[in-house]
Amino acid sequence: MKSLAQLVHELGKLPGIGSKTATRLAYFILNSEGGYVNRLSTAMMEAKAKLRNCDSCYNYTEEALCDLCKNPSRTDHLIAIVERPSDVDAVLSTQSFAGKFHVLHGLISPIDGTGPEELHLNDLRKRVEALGETGAVEIMLALNPSVESEATALYISKTLQGLPVEISKIAYGLPMGGALEYADKMTITKAISNRVSVQSCG
Amino acid sequence: MKSLAQLVHELGKLPGIGSKTATRLAYFILNSEGGYVNRLSTAMMEAKAKLRNCDSCYNYTEEALCDLCKNPSRTDHLIAIVERPSDVDAVLSTQSFAGKFHVLHGLISPIDGTGPEELHLNDLRKRVEALGETGAVEIMLALNPSVESEATALYISKTLQGLPVEISKIAYGLPMGGALEYADKMTITKAISNRVSVQSCG
Repeated sequence: MKSLAQLVHELGKLPGIGSKTATRLAYFILNSEGGYVNRLSTAMMEAKAKLRNCDSCYNYTEEALCDLCKNPSRTDHLIAIVERPSDVDAVLSTQSFAGKFHVLHGLISPIDGTGPEELHLNDLRKRVEALGETGAVEIMLALNPSVESEATALYISKTLQGLPVEISKIAYGLPMGGALEYADKMTITKAISNRVSVQSCG
Repeated sequence: MKSLAQLVHELGKLPGIGSKTATRLAYFILNSEGGYVNRLSTAMMEAKAKLRNCDSCYNYTEEALCDLCKNPSRTDHLIAIVERPSDVDAVLSTQSFAGKFHVLHGLISPIDGTGPEELHLNDLRKRVEALGETGAVEIMLALNPSVESEATALYISKTLQGLPVEISKIAYGLPMGGALEYADKMTITKAISNRVSVQSCG
C-alpha cells in the first residue's frame, strides 16, 4: 500500500501530527466523500496563492494592508512585536490591546541564518519615523521567553535608537491559576525578580 | 482573510482537529516551502484513486487481494471481524494473531442506514462456505464494546447459521496496568462476569 504510506508520510510532516494521528487522518481522507480532497487541496493552494504579507505589519493578508493596520480605531502609537501570526490572534483574544502589530516571522538566530533583514526591523524603524512629530511610540515586545527572543529584543532596541520610542515587554511570571508548588524554577525566579510594589508602609 | 478562514474550515473537518489546531496547521501550510502543498494534495488524490477494498476482506489495498489475504502463512480458518482498517493495524501490532480479517467499515445502525449489505456479511458467509470441507472456522469478533457492536455480533451469528463456525469475541475487562480503583463500573462489571477459573480445589 505505497500510496497509503506516502499519504501518512506527508501528513506526518504537519506540526504536532505523529505517525498514529497521521494514520487516523489518512483513513479519514480515504473514507471522505468525493469532494473533500478537492476542497482541501483547493483551500491550501488558494491560501498559498492569495495570502501575502501586509506592507506595514507583515501579518498575513489578501490586500496591501491588513484589516488591523487599516483600522482607524487602533492607535499607531502602540506596536506589539510578535514572533508569529498566531501570536497576533493570542494578543487580540484578550481584547485588552488597542494598538497595532509587527510580525517578525521568526527570531534572530545566527545558526538558522535569520538576521535583522528577515525580521524587517528596518521597516519597523521607517514605520516609527513616518509617524514623525505626532508623539511618542511604545513598542511592546510580546515574545515567548527564550535566548533568541532576548537577542531579538536587543536588536530591536538597537535598530530604534535615537527615535522617541519606549520599549516595554510583557510580564513573565506565575500564570493565573498556576501554583508556586508546581511552577518551574525559571518561572519562580522571573516572578520574584519582576515583583511589583503593592503598598508602601511608613 | 477569506482564504485563510476557508483553509482553517476545511482542516477543521479532519478528525480530532479542533479550530485551534486547524489554525496552527493552516499557518504551517502557509509557511511551508513551495512543494509541500502539491505533494500533500497529490498524495491525497493518489491514495483516493489507487486504494480500493480487498475482494476478500474489504481492507484497503492497491490490488484485487490485500497482502494479508495473499499471505499463505496466515490461516484461513481464523477470521477476525473488525470495524475499521485501523483496527487491523491494532490487532496485527500484537503479533499474536495468525489469521485473516473481515473489515466491516461500520456497524449495524438503523439510524445511519447501515445494514448487513453495507458490512458485506453475505460475502463473509460465501468466504466461509468456499472453504468447504477443509475444516471448521473460528470467527473472532474484535469489536469495541457498544450497543451497535452487540447488534452487529447478532447479525453475524445469524448470517453464518448452519455453517461449521465457532464465533468468539475478544475479552473485555480491566486493562493491563489499570487499577480497579480507577476503572469505571461497566468495565468492572464486565471483568467480574467474564472471570476465568484459575484453580479448582477439592
